[in-house]
Amino acid sequence: MSPAPLFAAPSSDHHEQEEGAVLRPRFDAAGLVTAVVTDVASGDLLMVAHMNAEALDRTLATGIAHYWSRSRQALWKKGETSGALQSVAEIRIDCDQDAVWLKVAAAKPDDTCHTGRDTCFYRRVAADGRTLDASPGRDSDAS
Amino acid sequence: MSPAPLFAAPSSDHHEQEEGAVLRPRFDAAGLVTAVVTDVASGDLLMVAHMNAEALDRTLATGIAHYWSRSRQALWKKGETSGALQSVAEIRIDCDQDAVWLKVAAAKPDDTCHTGRDTCFYRRVAADGRTLDASPGRDSDAS
Repeated sequence: MSPAPLFAAPSSDHHEQEEGAVLRPRFDAAGLVTAVVTDVASGDLLMVAHMNAEALDRTLATGIAHYWSRSRQALWKKGETSGALQSVAEIRIDCDQDAVWLKVAAAKPDDTCHTGRDTCFYRRVAADGRTLDASPGRDSDAS
Repeated sequence: MSPAPLFAAPSSDHHEQEEGAVLRPRFDAAGLVTAVVTDVASGDLLMVAHMNAEALDRTLATGIAHYWSRSRQALWKKGETSGALQSVAEIRIDCDQDAVWLKVAAAKPDDTCHTGRDTCFYRRVAADGRTLDASPGRDSDAS
């Protein structure tokens, strides 16, 4: 027995895909949608990750963020070992349903990035467009 | 003559890639990085798009957001015909340099999404996890 499909299939009808009330994730050739993750309180961008159907289903079912690790090729319940779980306050999906937006509350905000920071986006592209500045107050090397 | 490389190549040294001060975008197999686009004033998530090297270079050189249209397989200067240009206030890059965060000021905020909304993320995944609610006040069908 195969399990019931987790979601509806993407529709070839643009109106249904973009204006409809049915979740129809458009997974890419690798079976993934992009997940943009922000802090529900501050609105800050925390990270960008990817979800396969199982990760999206687990996230919806449990309210805890699950992703697909492309490097490990495995389901990734973020914080499962560190305790840095992300509780999902809201999920949105974009017009063509190939990207989701998770608003989360992080149990350990300083463990959001594997580099030990509260966001993965800690470097700004500098004025010359070729070098990077660490964000103000965020350069852990200088602390 | 081939042009000079636009950016440094990704480094196999994790420390250089994650802590270094050189822009080393890690384009994927399709030559793309993910671009997360937020409103510089409100912080709201506007859209998710993709950039190839040329789009990133044009964005850095002009301060106007350029993307790569995967559907049209072409460089996409957003708003070139509609006037809905995005002026880039800041660009950040993530730890492994495969995603960028653009904070923009949109010339025509209501034209951000091709559906005629000020964000592509106008639907929330409903409590049942399978259907979608339009965001409060954002359901253009009801207006």
